[in-house]
Parts: sequence; structure tokens; C-alpha cells
Amino acid sequence: MNKPDLHAAAEALVAFIHEGIPLAHTMGLSLRRYDGERLVLRCPLAPNVNDKGCAFGGSLTSLMTLTGWGLVELALRQRAEDCDVYVGESTVRYLSPVWGDFEAEAQHADDADWDAFFATLSSRGRARISVICQVPGENGNPAATLEAKFVAKRRVAAAE
Amino acid sequence: MNKPDLHAAAEALVAFIHEGIPLAHTMGLSLRRYDGERLVLRCPLAPNVNDKGCAFGGSLTSLMTLTGWGLVELALRQRAEDCDVYVGESTVRYLSPVWGDFEAEAQHADDADWDAFFATLSSRGRARISVICQVPGENGNPAATLEAKFVAKRRVAAAE
Repeated sequence: MNKPDLHAAAEALVAFIHEGIPLAHTMGLSLRRYDGERLVLRCPLAPNVNDKGCAFGGSLTSLMTLTGWGLVELALRQRAEDCDVYVGESTVRYLSPVWGDFEAEAQHADDADWDAFFATLSSRGRARISVICQVPGENGNPAATLEAKFVAKRRVAAAE
Repeated sequence: MNKPDLHAAAEALVAFIHEGIPLAHTMGLSLRRYDGERLVLRCPLAPNVNDKGCAFGGSLTSLMTLTGWGLVELALRQRAEDCDVYVGESTVRYLSPVWGDFEAEAQHADDADWDAFFATLSSRGRARISVICQVPGENGNPAATLEAKFVAKRRVAAAE
């Protein structure tokens, strides 16, 4: 898939998120970039602020989880795989407060591999992959990180 | 603190959350109960739904994190401790989808101890405590769980 097509696919996913997940719509989520390997989504601070004036932890985690989910969803759509994608487990570290608009960047974990993921999905109709996300902070350090396992399960047509 | 006072303190905290965290307001968070040991907050499904018609993972995690944060905040307020409370790290497990309104119940972890927490806070001005939360699911099993570490830091008056 070439670059404009990747971008269009990611824009379509963001529109799908806005339509299907009202809270993500309220968060004001938008696409920053997608190159087939990394997905970056962003949010303005205003709807995601907490009582201290920085970004609400729930918003940071929601954005990182959605970005990870989106990365898996886009990889599946590019191969015309019709799956439901669920987050199974995640570990979040909140490292420093975020005082402005923020982004989350997702990529597959070092020990994860799309080829193995698609081979398992092909043979079992179900596969899992680990994704890492971060919210970039100041001086090149992350403000928050997330490691999550996502499960993709092929949708099956009704038996009747 | 007697039972009506505990309830009033928790109601005041929920009002504070609604005022300070617009996303929590949108989630429709409300108090279910607080007995000094356990805090239970709830959300309606409608504003927290995802594209599959069940509760958005970001909403489950946000509610569990807020409930854990609220538990620590209430324990501090009962002792007239003026602190900022931050979530430092959390592990979330999404075990089964949630198809209706949902609750999160928070209590301190088995290996955590309020006495030790307050003693450390008293000597160092800063202390951490582990909290566990769950969203109850069907047949007595949790639909989601969260283990989180919260850090309380005493506010200090400006030096000048």
C-alpha cells in the first residue's frame, strides 16, 4: 500500500472510531500519521484535562490503547482480514505530567512479529500480538508508556 | 467517621471529579457506595459504549483508575492530609465484555497497609500505596481488573 493509501486507511479508521466510540469523539482524537509500521494519534488537552490542569490519566491510557488497537486493526484491514480486535491485558506507566496537547505512538513490540501473527490467524482463526505505545514527553523522554496484548478473532458468518 | 459522613465525603469527591475532569463528567460517573474500606463508583453504558456495543476499554480503565484514586484521596481527606495523588503504574486485565451499566470497586491491595502509608507520608511527605480494583462481571467473576500504585505527595505552601 502506498503512502496516500495508508493515510486514507488511517483516516477511515479514525472516522470509524469517532462514530463508534462516543468517548473517543469527546476526547477529540485525530490522526497525526501512519506509515504502515507506526500509528500516531493525538488529542487536544482541553477535553482531557484533570483537576490539576494536566492530562487526565484515563485519557492518556485511552488514547494509547486506541492507538495500539488501531495499529492492529489497520494491519488486518490491509490484508482484508475481517476480525474483531480486543485488548487483553496492558501495563501502563505514568512517568511525567502532560501540560499540553498530546500524542500516542504505537508500534509492535520488539518480540512481536506480524508474519507470525498472520500465520497463526490463518491457521487458528485467532491470534495475539504485543504492541508498545508511548506518549512523548519532554527532552525526548516518554511521559507515559503502555505495553498491551491484543487479540484478533476472525468474524464468522452466522451458521444458518 | 460515621456512615453518613463517609457517604457525604464520597459524594463531595464525586462532585469534585465532575467539576475538575470533564471526561469523567461525560462518562456519567456516580457514587454507588463507600464504607471507609471500599469505594464503588458506577457509569451508565450509553456514553461509554464502543463500536461493538459493549463498554469501551478506555472507559473501564478510566473508571477503575478514578475509583482507586478516589479511595486514596478519601483516606487522605479523612485524616485532613492535603496531598496531590498521582497514579504511577497500573496493570489492567480485560476478562470479558460488559454489555450494560458497570461499576468499579476499589480497595487497598492485600500487601498494602494504610498505617504504613500514613507513617511514611508523615516522615517523608510522600508515600505510595497499592490498590486493586475490579469491574464485577457475570456469575461472580470480574469483567476487568486493575492493580495500581498511587503516590501521595504533601502539598507545600509557596516559600515566599
